[in-house]
Amino acid sequence: MSKDKKFVEAITDMDVDFPRWYTDVVKKAELVDYSSVRGCMVIRPYGYAIWENIQSNLDKMFKETGHENVYMPMFIPESLLQKEADHIEGFAPEVAWVTHGGSEELGERLCVRPTSETLFAEHYSKIVNSYKDLPKLYNQWCSVVRWEKTTRPFLRTLEFLWQEGHTAHRTAEDAQEETLRMLDVYGRLCEEYLAIPVIKGRKTEKEKFAGAEATYTIESLMHDGKALQCGTSHYFGDGFAKAFDIQFTDSDGKMKHVHQTSWGVTTRLIGAIIMVHGDNSGLMLPPKIAPKQLVIIPVAQHKEGVLEKANELKERLSKEFRVQLDDSDKKPGWKYSEYEMKGVPLRVEIGPKDIEKNQAVLVRRDTREKVFVSLDELEAKITETLDSIQNDMLEAARTRQTEKTSVATDYDTFKETVANRPGFIKAMWCEDRACEEKIKEDTGASSRCMPFHDQEPIADTCICCEKPAKKLVYWGRAY
Amino acid sequence: MSKDKKFVEAITDMDVDFPRWYTDVVKKAELVDYSSVRGCMVIRPYGYAIWENIQSNLDKMFKETGHENVYMPMFIPESLLQKEADHIEGFAPEVAWVTHGGSEELGERLCVRPTSETLFAEHYSKIVNSYKDLPKLYNQWCSVVRWEKTTRPFLRTLEFLWQEGHTAHRTAEDAQEETLRMLDVYGRLCEEYLAIPVIKGRKTEKEKFAGAEATYTIESLMHDGKALQCGTSHYFGDGFAKAFDIQFTDSDGKMKHVHQTSWGVTTRLIGAIIMVHGDNSGLMLPPKIAPKQLVIIPVAQHKEGVLEKANELKERLSKEFRVQLDDSDKKPGWKYSEYEMKGVPLRVEIGPKDIEKNQAVLVRRDTREKVFVSLDELEAKITETLDSIQNDMLEAARTRQTEKTSVATDYDTFKETVANRPGFIKAMWCEDRACEEKIKEDTGASSRCMPFHDQEPIADTCICCEKPAKKLVYWGRAY
Repeated sequence: MSKDKKFVEAITDMDVDFPRWYTDVVKKAELVDYSSVRGCMVIRPYGYAIWENIQSNLDKMFKETGHENVYMPMFIPESLLQKEADHIEGFAPEVAWVTHGGSEELGERLCVRPTSETLFAEHYSKIVNSYKDLPKLYNQWCSVVRWEKTTRPFLRTLEFLWQEGHTAHRTAEDAQEETLRMLDVYGRLCEEYLAIPVIKGRKTEKEKFAGAEATYTIESLMHDGKALQCGTSHYFGDGFAKAFDIQFTDSDGKMKHVHQTSWGVTTRLIGAIIMVHGDNSGLMLPPKIAPKQLVIIPVAQHKEGVLEKANELKERLSKEFRVQLDDSDKKPGWKYSEYEMKGVPLRVEIGPKDIEKNQAVLVRRDTREKVFVSLDELEAKITETLDSIQNDMLEAARTRQTEKTSVATDYDTFKETVANRPGFIKAMWCEDRACEEKIKEDTGASSRCMPFHDQEPIADTCICCEKPAKKLVYWGRAY
Repeated sequence: MSKDKKFVEAITDMDVDFPRWYTDVVKKAELVDYSSVRGCMVIRPYGYAIWENIQSNLDKMFKETGHENVYMPMFIPESLLQKEADHIEGFAPEVAWVTHGGSEELGERLCVRPTSETLFAEHYSKIVNSYKDLPKLYNQWCSVVRWEKTTRPFLRTLEFLWQEGHTAHRTAEDAQEETLRMLDVYGRLCEEYLAIPVIKGRKTEKEKFAGAEATYTIESLMHDGKALQCGTSHYFGDGFAKAFDIQFTDSDGKMKHVHQTSWGVTTRLIGAIIMVHGDNSGLMLPPKIAPKQLVIIPVAQHKEGVLEKANELKERLSKEFRVQLDDSDKKPGWKYSEYEMKGVPLRVEIGPKDIEKNQAVLVRRDTREKVFVSLDELEAKITETLDSIQNDMLEAARTRQTEKTSVATDYDTFKETVANRPGFIKAMWCEDRACEEKIKEDTGASSRCMPFHDQEPIADTCICCEKPAKKLVYWGRAY
């Protein structure tokens, strides 16, 4: 047992040093590796398989809501990026520039896309002519680059994988509806698949996307009480349409500009999964997106019939679940630790005594609960247990989020709360950017969002300046 | 009917100007659009859906053969690219260089990956320690960049989508086996899914990949008699392993270098589909990878019950096939032309008379054959017809390939054949690079491959120098 303990002890205690715990988990669960490219990561098979599961579920939701996938160039000529003034101002400081092709210096620099609004806008200006061409509901899966100073795997890297939806609509109302529809899709992805409860709301003017009229967000809370923006959806009005001349002939014969949206989620979601669900034994994956939903571990596998039975179970269970069998010569206890580290939702143990009794042992990753199940009803019991793990993980995360959500009605309490009770803080705001900036400077907390479903005033005055309050805001330190 | 004719006439006759025919099809079938980024293309929804189908089938084959997906950074530091001498020599002239991040000049230039051998090698050097860690069978789906002077959609673009497999093995034999296994997977993809017959063989030293010990290829023949390399698989020996110090402890306790492979196919395969199967009505897609396998066209759709029936059919057939219903107000003849242009394998017409007779009309895209089918046996008949289209397209392509394959045993005949009978030319070769270069210079034909299954000598002497022949080679002008 000492060996197993050593394996577990190799990661830092999350309550002692959360950032180090995070890095330990990411490395030990073999999600990523570093490379000689500063700020970029190698996403290893286990990490990439999580992304593939997120991707296939989300892509299905996109297609069900009428979206089509396309692929745009990864380069954007400098002049194209400059066409929308707010957009270039927001992104210019953080793009990578290609200046040479082979040995030749380019006439015009190309940036590696940080996001593709400009390319989609240029394309729409060519293919949208009539109201019959609308809406255009496009999405793209790709990687983008933002030249960050400090980086951390999944949370902030120079290059990251994402999807970016870009849509063009006949009216402002249609586009606004789309913006919120896709925020809902993201909310469903987080809650139903990733077991991550989110707060939906609108970003302040200060926090909105460069070039957008309005940015909506889903915000979640990590184990350490810091917030993480899990996905955003932007309403552009006709700003890009005017900058890029995207016009169509409407049914009344008049030329009109389209109204646009864009929305994206990234591999950052894997960071959220780690930090919402993980514990001191490592990763904990929700069954719906776990690369392996269960691992079969033979006990006393040298004994006659054990490996045969384990293999038989693997074949049988693989018809319904994503299954791994570990028949290596490591000790069972060591294997238990290893798959706990990797966050496999369910462990199935089978040994000589179990075979005798026609049973297997199921052990949940989340609660460690151990049950003996007849082999005759194994599939049914596993299905039930995986469903229960999925739901319980969401509920546990919701409970933690509620516990870590505070309310402040005066600035001293607010400051004290940010300092001592990490989490969301609900407090009123006057809508003045100066207050938002002061709060950030005083406490390190930023406005996370103005929530949709929680707008009952809890005070009459702004938490900062004490002028009349206009909005309830969720505040918090964030990744 | 004149309108329909006009629609069809809008593309150039393939026998008059094949390159223009190609560009016309690519544009009119809405596969791609140009952008303001030189040499890069926008892959539109219909083109991207073909790629998604190729991707999902191929990815399944990769996983069935034990491969795992990963994601590597898109940037490669100049010093890393330089580690393997042949490799850098081959790629340096055609890479895009990132020199600035934001407003800052980088200490070391980064190239945008033209291929990722160096990154995989660096990663393997860190994660491979023991023979128990082998083999590593990794694959990556991504885009790569090569700074080409002249470009054409799908065939040659600055940026293109591909997959790159990179594997590391315990022995040379294991790696060689893998190289050929993956060539076989590519062959199966082409023949079973894309209905493209291929010649499998080895590349000459001149044509092999930069840094490889041996390159294997699958070559196909286009409508115009030019060859297209559809996919390649490389055996590296331990060249990269030595350059990157990828060593492991073998079971005998000795430190050894791994042996490696890499293999890739690209969106170029879409170009092959267009040029192998297309005709003067446009694209022709094999049912297995067609985004829509059939299109339902209501006839006299203003008449009572027609649209209802068409919608009912759509819902019913969508359970088994990828189906589109076109109930727009365009005339049926116009729609026929449009879906012929888009290469939809099967058209299902339904009008008042058909409803009366409880039948539908099936029209094949490939043979134009028209049959009346009882609605009671529609699914069975469609399945049968789609299978038959898939097979017949492969056979038709095989027949064209055979017809366009010539044999030459003297140089005059060879030169005359290249000039007047575009296609593959089988001819003997002495294995001297000088002859290969002379043939290319004299005729424009390059060595496509030394085929595996066709090595019976057809002459004793080299087609060029008349010294003793060593290999039979397929020659041809190529894309």
